[in-house]
Amino acid sequence: MNKVTTGSFITFEGGEGAGKSTQIKRLAARLEALSVPVTLTREPGGSPGAEEIRTLLVTGEGDRWSGLSESLLHFAARADHLERLIKPARSRGDWVLCDRFADSTLAYQGGGHGLNSAAIQTLYDLVVGAQGPDLTLILDLPVEAGLARAASRGEGEDRYEKMGLAFHERLRAAFLEIARQNPQRCVVIDATFDIDTVEAAIWTAVSKRFSLSS
Amino acid sequence: MNKVTTGSFITFEGGEGAGKSTQIKRLAARLEALSVPVTLTREPGGSPGAEEIRTLLVTGEGDRWSGLSESLLHFAARADHLERLIKPARSRGDWVLCDRFADSTLAYQGGGHGLNSAAIQTLYDLVVGAQGPDLTLILDLPVEAGLARAASRGEGEDRYEKMGLAFHERLRAAFLEIARQNPQRCVVIDATFDIDTVEAAIWTAVSKRFSLSS
Repeated sequence: MNKVTTGSFITFEGGEGAGKSTQIKRLAARLEALSVPVTLTREPGGSPGAEEIRTLLVTGEGDRWSGLSESLLHFAARADHLERLIKPARSRGDWVLCDRFADSTLAYQGGGHGLNSAAIQTLYDLVVGAQGPDLTLILDLPVEAGLARAASRGEGEDRYEKMGLAFHERLRAAFLEIARQNPQRCVVIDATFDIDTVEAAIWTAVSKRFSLSS
Repeated sequence: MNKVTTGSFITFEGGEGAGKSTQIKRLAARLEALSVPVTLTREPGGSPGAEEIRTLLVTGEGDRWSGLSESLLHFAARADHLERLIKPARSRGDWVLCDRFADSTLAYQGGGHGLNSAAIQTLYDLVVGAQGPDLTLILDLPVEAGLARAASRGEGEDRYEKMGLAFHERLRAAFLEIARQNPQRCVVIDATFDIDTVEAAIWTAVSKRFSLSS
């Protein structure tokens, strides 16, 4: 285990269609303009092994896995991603920006599927420990608006989108609860505004947290 | 969670080429001759989802996964297998005979790969808890003899077989240590003898443990 981590670690969280993948690219461009080296990645996936596990998670029917199996698959992918991509990138000084991380497991499998959150915490301690993010941006918007945006993408990776409104309402509540419980790490971003406005709000949060000037 | 389990649960463990798949079928035939309903299964795998995870585990290069990722994948498959095959079978009164179970994770990822056994115990408690086997038969034979038998099968699922003699020696030692630590549950069977002799030794252990007469 390499304990020297120099690059910062920022995660983007939120429900379907909140604009995470657009905003993560905008933040990367802003950081690169300040000569900060950036590694952009995502979960589930991010490393070759983890991407293979991703396929088991994002395709197929909604009841394909129990909440416990699904959480174990997410953490198996995450262990590979941390070991083979995130840690090496941070060690060489890159800032790592990740589209979803462990909070998604807590929200989707805990909040959404009702798996005991103590079980997820046990897996978090085992796999992530002190290697978690320095800052988490939670992009929040009403469920109907997010699902409408996600449906218009038509990517085929729609297993979670098919799970119904009540599931997605629990998901949104779970992310807001995570933010409430982790005020040092999490910032909730109102994602109902246009892309430029959301980008500016994210930049305000990042530059404040890491004392950057643009 | 269904707490009423009536059918007994017997697992077969040991290194490559010890004769587990032959012996498990012989034991099933003996039990069926006594009108005991039997479900035969295997790990990794045993249920449709778990078999898909199996493909990630038994193919590819030896260093494909870290010990931690690999253990998490095994327990993800095991959670699915327990929930969707083993528990329902035992609930309807079947005896479940399983070719490999959690001791293999402990021996292969703990003993073989050197992953902290406390981590594997944490996963065991989370996924298996009180649903573990009533009896575990550990088929033991010298490493060279087992690998020679396994190589002659030529099945293509040879990721573990490729791992070298020292790995397989640690594996054998790990299984014997598991037997030493769990004398109530485990019986070591000398698998160097011919198939009929090994079958008879297994039947002695099973009929004694469950007070059967043949």
